[in-house]
Amino acid sequence: MHPFPAVNSRAPFIWHGGDYNPEQWPRDIWDQDISLMQESHFRVPTVGVFSWVSLQPEEERFTFEWLDTILDKLANSGRLICLATPTAAQPAWMSQRYPDVLRSDDKGIRNHHGRRGNYCPTSPTYRRFAVQIAERMAERYAKHPALLIWHVCNEYGGACYCSQCATEFRNWLQKRYSSLDDLNQKWWTPFWGHTYTDWSQIEPPYANGERAIHALTLDYKRFQSDMLLQCFQLERDAIRKFSPDIPITTNMMGTYPGLDYRKWAKEVDVISWDCYPAPKDHPSDIAFLHDLNRGLRDNQPFLLMEQTPSSQNWQAVNALKRPGILRLWSYLAVAHGADAVMYFQWRRGRGGCEKMHGAVVEHSGRADTRVFREVSQLGAELEHLKDRTIGGVTHSRVAMLFDWDNWWAIEDTVGPVRDKQYIQTLRQHYAALWKQHVSVDIVFSDSDISTYDVLIAPMLYMLKPGVAERIEAFVSKGGSFIATYFTGYVNEYDLANENGYPGPLSHVLGIWNEEIDALYPEQSNKIVMNDGSGKYVCNHLCEIIHCEGATPLATYATDFYAGSPVVTRNSFGRGNAYYIASRPEQSFLDAFYAPILAEHHIAPTLTVPAGVEIAQRETAQGTVLFLLNHATDAVQIPLQSKKRFLNLLNDQTVQDTITLTQYDVAILTAIDDEKNQGAKGQ
Amino acid sequence: MHPFPAVNSRAPFIWHGGDYNPEQWPRDIWDQDISLMQESHFRVPTVGVFSWVSLQPEEERFTFEWLDTILDKLANSGRLICLATPTAAQPAWMSQRYPDVLRSDDKGIRNHHGRRGNYCPTSPTYRRFAVQIAERMAERYAKHPALLIWHVCNEYGGACYCSQCATEFRNWLQKRYSSLDDLNQKWWTPFWGHTYTDWSQIEPPYANGERAIHALTLDYKRFQSDMLLQCFQLERDAIRKFSPDIPITTNMMGTYPGLDYRKWAKEVDVISWDCYPAPKDHPSDIAFLHDLNRGLRDNQPFLLMEQTPSSQNWQAVNALKRPGILRLWSYLAVAHGADAVMYFQWRRGRGGCEKMHGAVVEHSGRADTRVFREVSQLGAELEHLKDRTIGGVTHSRVAMLFDWDNWWAIEDTVGPVRDKQYIQTLRQHYAALWKQHVSVDIVFSDSDISTYDVLIAPMLYMLKPGVAERIEAFVSKGGSFIATYFTGYVNEYDLANENGYPGPLSHVLGIWNEEIDALYPEQSNKIVMNDGSGKYVCNHLCEIIHCEGATPLATYATDFYAGSPVVTRNSFGRGNAYYIASRPEQSFLDAFYAPILAEHHIAPTLTVPAGVEIAQRETAQGTVLFLLNHATDAVQIPLQSKKRFLNLLNDQTVQDTITLTQYDVAILTAIDDEKNQGAKGQ
Amino acid sequence: MHPFPAVNSRAPFIWHGGDYNPEQWPRDIWDQDISLMQESHFRVPTVGVFSWVSLQPEEERFTFEWLDTILDKLANSGRLICLATPTAAQPAWMSQRYPDVLRSDDKGIRNHHGRRGNYCPTSPTYRRFAVQIAERMAERYAKHPALLIWHVCNEYGGACYCSQCATEFRNWLQKRYSSLDDLNQKWWTPFWGHTYTDWSQIEPPYANGERAIHALTLDYKRFQSDMLLQCFQLERDAIRKFSPDIPITTNMMGTYPGLDYRKWAKEVDVISWDCYPAPKDHPSDIAFLHDLNRGLRDNQPFLLMEQTPSSQNWQAVNALKRPGILRLWSYLAVAHGADAVMYFQWRRGRGGCEKMHGAVVEHSGRADTRVFREVSQLGAELEHLKDRTIGGVTHSRVAMLFDWDNWWAIEDTVGPVRDKQYIQTLRQHYAALWKQHVSVDIVFSDSDISTYDVLIAPMLYMLKPGVAERIEAFVSKGGSFIATYFTGYVNEYDLANENGYPGPLSHVLGIWNEEIDALYPEQSNKIVMNDGSGKYVCNHLCEIIHCEGATPLATYATDFYAGSPVVTRNSFGRGNAYYIASRPEQSFLDAFYAPILAEHHIAPTLTVPAGVEIAQRETAQGTVLFLLNHATDAVQIPLQSKKRFLNLLNDQTVQDTITLTQYDVAILTAIDDEKNQGAKGQ
Repeated sequence: MHPFPAVNSRAPFIWHGGDYNPEQWPRDIWDQDISLMQESHFRVPTVGVFSWVSLQPEEERFTFEWLDTILDKLANSGRLICLATPTAAQPAWMSQRYPDVLRSDDKGIRNHHGRRGNYCPTSPTYRRFAVQIAERMAERYAKHPALLIWHVCNEYGGACYCSQCATEFRNWLQKRYSSLDDLNQKWWTPFWGHTYTDWSQIEPPYANGERAIHALTLDYKRFQSDMLLQCFQLERDAIRKFSPDIPITTNMMGTYPGLDYRKWAKEVDVISWDCYPAPKDHPSDIAFLHDLNRGLRDNQPFLLMEQTPSSQNWQAVNALKRPGILRLWSYLAVAHGADAVMYFQWRRGRGGCEKMHGAVVEHSGRADTRVFREVSQLGAELEHLKDRTIGGVTHSRVAMLFDWDNWWAIEDTVGPVRDKQYIQTLRQHYAALWKQHVSVDIVFSDSDISTYDVLIAPMLYMLKPGVAERIEAFVSKGGSFIATYFTGYVNEYDLANENGYPGPLSHVLGIWNEEIDALYPEQSNKIVMNDGSGKYVCNHLCEIIHCEGATPLATYATDFYAGSPVVTRNSFGRGNAYYIASRPEQSFLDAFYAPILAEHHIAPTLTVPAGVEIAQRETAQGTVLFLLNHATDAVQIPLQSKKRFLNLLNDQTVQDTITLTQYDVAILTAIDDEKNQGAKGQ
Repeated sequence: MHPFPAVNSRAPFIWHGGDYNPEQWPRDIWDQDISLMQESHFRVPTVGVFSWVSLQPEEERFTFEWLDTILDKLANSGRLICLATPTAAQPAWMSQRYPDVLRSDDKGIRNHHGRRGNYCPTSPTYRRFAVQIAERMAERYAKHPALLIWHVCNEYGGACYCSQCATEFRNWLQKRYSSLDDLNQKWWTPFWGHTYTDWSQIEPPYANGERAIHALTLDYKRFQSDMLLQCFQLERDAIRKFSPDIPITTNMMGTYPGLDYRKWAKEVDVISWDCYPAPKDHPSDIAFLHDLNRGLRDNQPFLLMEQTPSSQNWQAVNALKRPGILRLWSYLAVAHGADAVMYFQWRRGRGGCEKMHGAVVEHSGRADTRVFREVSQLGAELEHLKDRTIGGVTHSRVAMLFDWDNWWAIEDTVGPVRDKQYIQTLRQHYAALWKQHVSVDIVFSDSDISTYDVLIAPMLYMLKPGVAERIEAFVSKGGSFIATYFTGYVNEYDLANENGYPGPLSHVLGIWNEEIDALYPEQSNKIVMNDGSGKYVCNHLCEIIHCEGATPLATYATDFYAGSPVVTRNSFGRGNAYYIASRPEQSFLDAFYAPILAEHHIAPTLTVPAGVEIAQRETAQGTVLFLLNHATDAVQIPLQSKKRFLNLLNDQTVQDTITLTQYDVAILTAIDDEKNQGAKGQ
Repeated sequence: MHPFPAVNSRAPFIWHGGDYNPEQWPRDIWDQDISLMQESHFRVPTVGVFSWVSLQPEEERFTFEWLDTILDKLANSGRLICLATPTAAQPAWMSQRYPDVLRSDDKGIRNHHGRRGNYCPTSPTYRRFAVQIAERMAERYAKHPALLIWHVCNEYGGACYCSQCATEFRNWLQKRYSSLDDLNQKWWTPFWGHTYTDWSQIEPPYANGERAIHALTLDYKRFQSDMLLQCFQLERDAIRKFSPDIPITTNMMGTYPGLDYRKWAKEVDVISWDCYPAPKDHPSDIAFLHDLNRGLRDNQPFLLMEQTPSSQNWQAVNALKRPGILRLWSYLAVAHGADAVMYFQWRRGRGGCEKMHGAVVEHSGRADTRVFREVSQLGAELEHLKDRTIGGVTHSRVAMLFDWDNWWAIEDTVGPVRDKQYIQTLRQHYAALWKQHVSVDIVFSDSDISTYDVLIAPMLYMLKPGVAERIEAFVSKGGSFIATYFTGYVNEYDLANENGYPGPLSHVLGIWNEEIDALYPEQSNKIVMNDGSGKYVCNHLCEIIHCEGATPLATYATDFYAGSPVVTRNSFGRGNAYYIASRPEQSFLDAFYAPILAEHHIAPTLTVPAGVEIAQRETAQGTVLFLLNHATDAVQIPLQSKKRFLNLLNDQTVQDTITLTQYDVAILTAIDDEKNQGAKGQ
């Protein structure tokens, strides 16, 4: 894995900027904005998001002049532009004249105009107009000196159930299945007498229609993800014609359930995403999301396209980011692969439903605010870092498998419990590794897993073709593979495996999963380690498994399956495959992973206290070490003896130990590395 | 009450079988199925449920060949067939070509095709096609040697609000009411100015329409129940033409709120029902449901048509049935009148929304599972029982009144509390009797109550014509009648009684109910027994009643009605009528019923420990005694001295005491009886 | 402020009566009703509510004869009539023939006929028919000797989203905004690209349409309130033509969110309202609502048009009013300005969804009920009071500002927390004053505030034009002004103030509100008084404010804003402006207001124990003093020394002290005053 070049070679530094909507403001504010941007090192405004009606107020009339003006003003003041196509909200005139651009709800009832993301992704009219505006913008601004990157549309998502979509869905299915018989078989339609006798009978999974065929529901999710992806591709290709050298992205949303971002990732030049953790999320939850985005394009650095500088507005409770958290979480992103630190939004709009969302410039317009100060200080610091982290890659020896189809299939499953907790389970395993200061790559069903030592695949309910084979190969060559309850139930059509569970993974795991018990929230069982090392609470689901080759490592403490295995290990080739048959408390996972990591000699570079996060990126100039203190107390961190480090954030030399106060961050390079880097970074 | 003959004289034993959907599976599985059925004593597969599209893939094309084949295979292997008409889910081609077959939701918006039970019960198209397929099947299979019973459609239920239903509803009303004036008067339509001036103005009680006239809501429930019943009748009559000698049933759903099963019961040859208790239900809750089904046709034995062999899938938490519970609950059914023990389902489908529902054969297809073993052992045991329980009836001296119209009226009532808890109240009273090991018959407003000693009618809010008179006669002849709060408020049109509450029961109860107070969940009052025997918590609703002839047995402890009566007894003729004016804690009911039972010399045959259930069925050969240990500890049960019993389950002779381990069951006959039975049972 | 004349000079006493629906009952009941009314001093029946179909059973046929009869019967027995137009529920024939009279839901889907308040307020058909029936009734009954007041329609409310409303909304907007550009600017439509380019593009804020423009949502609420108000005005004007001398009202619903009653108040002759507190509401919550209604027409006495004599039916739990509470709460109304004490309803209907709602005559029809007795005793007592409280006004020196637009804007705001608790906050501040026995006037953004000493404006998020200026004038002249968090954020278009918060109030408050933190329900901070007088819990929202002229009175105890001001005082001219930046526990407010009141020498006439309410009304004859014991214990209240009082309720003379038992009431006048009053009151 080699370091990557900067996303745009013209800007080989961490981009600092964010959403800017000058069209909402009178022109006298524009100059204030530019002056405040300069003051806060806000270098990369994102312009154009939602500007469609401002650029095309009538079907035949375009008004680019204001955009010309502000882009020039921004350019003249030293800004670089992230230029968005405005297609996330069509103008009212379009919905009015061409109602087919509007989405329909899950009963097939057409929406009224309004909100955003309210366009039908299969609508030929929407697609035609979206391509047209993208093309016009590309033609006009491709050569703009400040243009840094194209940002297509905004936060693609949602789903439509209109008759156009129904028609296109049938076309999509006819390409996917060799015949209607093939579809009937793979969808298991004889169940409840749902066999289709003509393609025209297939409809979307309406809320007041067909929700009993899970393969239909699943395929409809895939179809909608594909249709929106086509919208992106059409705009991208229109831009590319005029602007072949500028990278093109669209902003994603982490573990957003609606889109298979792994498939999307292949179509963008660089991943960008909007990071809005709940105020109470643990740092490891956020780290997981960054790693997911880094994984989408196989370790390529990504852009943190949006985060709030202070508070969100759409959560039930929108706490402020505490002082220092914006900086800490920004470096958390950089540590995990971000080459940009950007915000939603530059200035709070005075009206509309986001006027209470945090912004760099609040309604007061004042620069003497805590938030403006924190943004400015961070901006200065990032500027000071220059290119010294840019393109740096992460070398992980542990991988965790995530898969959107798997998630969709899990969510659709009726029984054994309603709340399946797939994402929570991923976060729980991730947290165990995070607490041991071990770097994790997020991988997918189609990823190359052969380079890792440890592969964790929580709740891999759906096994796609070839995955089991690749896992077998991985283990046989010495890898450690960890699976959990709810693994290997179905194939990619959501059809249960004919030989039961864990299906194609039975061989490598050496177990047979006979039954799955569901526990009420107030119930629990215990995991009793066979080596006497401990007992741990488990709950939610308890599978009753049998070792067919595997060795039990722990057994259930109570209930009629007391004494039967709950944790197993199967030696397979040169490696081991583990199975955890129930949902354990966190402390089990912490204890469970330690010996596995030790066996593979996986350890962090430094021994750091709890609450401190450590991460490394390998740049062209050498290793950059990130130390992030998530704790509210100051900590002392011992460094590798006899080595001197430069803290890139303040240019101080550190040796032996470094002290980090609450929420403080250090970015270190060994002195020799730093010399080179300092030279090149100019 | 004489014992009944077997449902079908060709099969004078407990039917063991369940839902089987060969059309979902390739033919190589069919032979495995038959072999596994043989192994598990799975004797009566239910075939045809939801097979419509497989039997009629096009309007003019029928494909019975596969069904011919599998029926013959099953017959050849010794199976007997429960043959279902497939009309619970119409084929997609039908919904597509004749959209009037689809249901409309409670706003009158037509559903899309999909799910099941999604047909309009008044649709002439649906009815025509349903009759046609039933007729074709009857014609073809009436003489099939393995045919045991007809199973029409599946779990009738739900409601439609389409314009066809609106029209039919008006027709139905015109038969029910002598004139529009009559309807206006009985529906109390001048309230809120809702008087109809033309029949055509009457609409279903749309969620976005008329929900203020409760008599309309009530009549619409009756109407929908009747329309679905007509669907059943049409299919039944079509079958009868060709198959006059085979019994016809449809599977019911216990206290399902949508249908008046008492009315339906008159139309079937035998009651069959699907028993899906929540995993946490108490055995007495299940016993109550079986008794309800036994009562539907006045003590005729019924078929347990469906139960899960392991877990359900549609509850929030679907715990496994613990080892032994399947057997215990199966005999619970038999003890209360079941002549069949059947499952949903034989083999788990690989796809669709029920693929996580328990089955005899799991996805693994293996026979070495706990569930398969338990099913097989139970099957063998049932086979061993032969006809020795078949047709046996239950002689109860206590009856409890349940009424669907009453339930519907209670649920519609706005005030004094939202959550009325009718079913819970029935369960609570039933549990008090169950704990005293006393058998209860569930009766209805039109039942003959004269044969009982004790009649309990919890929350009999609606009194239909003649009910009060029959209760008066019952009490005057020496019966004990127990009523509770929320009794005698309205007539069968949901019109409040003109002289207040308990209306026509005022005389027999000797009370006047002046006011009803509603308590918040955290509030309570106390029932203070006038004889000093105890104090009990009461809550939910507290009626302020006056004795007008009755004697107070207990008074309220607190609040402004402290000291006023809460429990009363009225001597009436040779009997007594009791009134309980608030919702008591369970221990009150336990204490309350003991002396009433004692007075009538109602006592169980044996004295058994708590947690053990005792039940008797009188067969042609004599008394069969069921002992079921619901406890997790072993118990010793003393038998009648000097009498020897045969345990029909293992042919062992027992005397003096019998020991039952956790969840164990014994079915005893006195030795003399047994001799006869053993002879005839061959 | 002078006393007011009686609402109708023919009835200078407290009206006692309520809703009466003779059309629901056979005529033999009518005579029973009149006899029972006489017995219970039920003097003013409200007739006609919902009688439309009974008066106009066909489009061209009117049937007033029954109404003639009953009105004459009532008049002959000494009743006076509150005569309602029946337009709250159109006849079924109208909905059937003219479907445009039906409302559409918030997705634009037309309702079916039924319920009430189900008419479109912009429908020309509805308006034409409503005017017609009002006119016919006015023409026929204007000269009826018993006619006391007109009651137009019933509980106006709800909203419609049909295409007629959409068209009228555009017309309404075109009058409100000078141009589409003006609207776009004030609605901040460039946000999310929502700029309208033609008036025809504007639609109601459909649930499945435009909900992102808060100014649209706000204007639509204003529009719907105006449209219903037009319905009222049209009926009122039709009546006025024939009945120019009889007062006209419509019954309001307290803090009903749907209508801007302050605007409506200008159009009625007298305020009337329906008082349905939750059973658990505190007396101060009810007092607040009465004061609100008294404030709607600037201290004019109002009519308590509806209250339940016993229980409601639509709450989750409908507890009975305890004995004495009906009397206590009735005098609570009178003490706060009511000149009528009326009920819903006279007699419980036998059917329909309100049959479990309390009534003077229950289903039993008996007069020997607790409720009938309490009503009768109260009726006699009220009769005894004659005119001695009528028209009396309240002189308050404390005012609290309430504003519907402000409420609407607060509710629409997305962030910083979902549950904004505007009404609860008003209640909390009101309760602090109530506990100090201090009278409060509720005022509005357009009220004259210059006459008060203390003005409290909780959560005045929206500042309408001129409000800040009037508050500045108020303070500068010596007033004390109290504001809280969430004040001064937006202007009347819901546009955030350009200089931040508290916007135009920054000057008078002397603070700048930099940030607002949101706390999870389990979190809290503390208010630490700078003078060491105490610490109080605060939660929900914590604003981080800066004194820009103000003096901090208290600081936050914890979190990163520990030590920053949470309560401030700004001396401004001769007065002070206070700011409370977080939600405090109640005890803070109790302590906070005491010195402010002391400073203004605001104190109750008498020193009374906790739980006793004191109120005064100034009549033409002098001061009437109300003492209400809300406690369950008897209390002794010391009176002003050396003065003798007459208790108007029992004509007893009291001196030195008066004892009130549980829930008891006294209405006192000083003896000299009383002499006059006794003379004139005859």
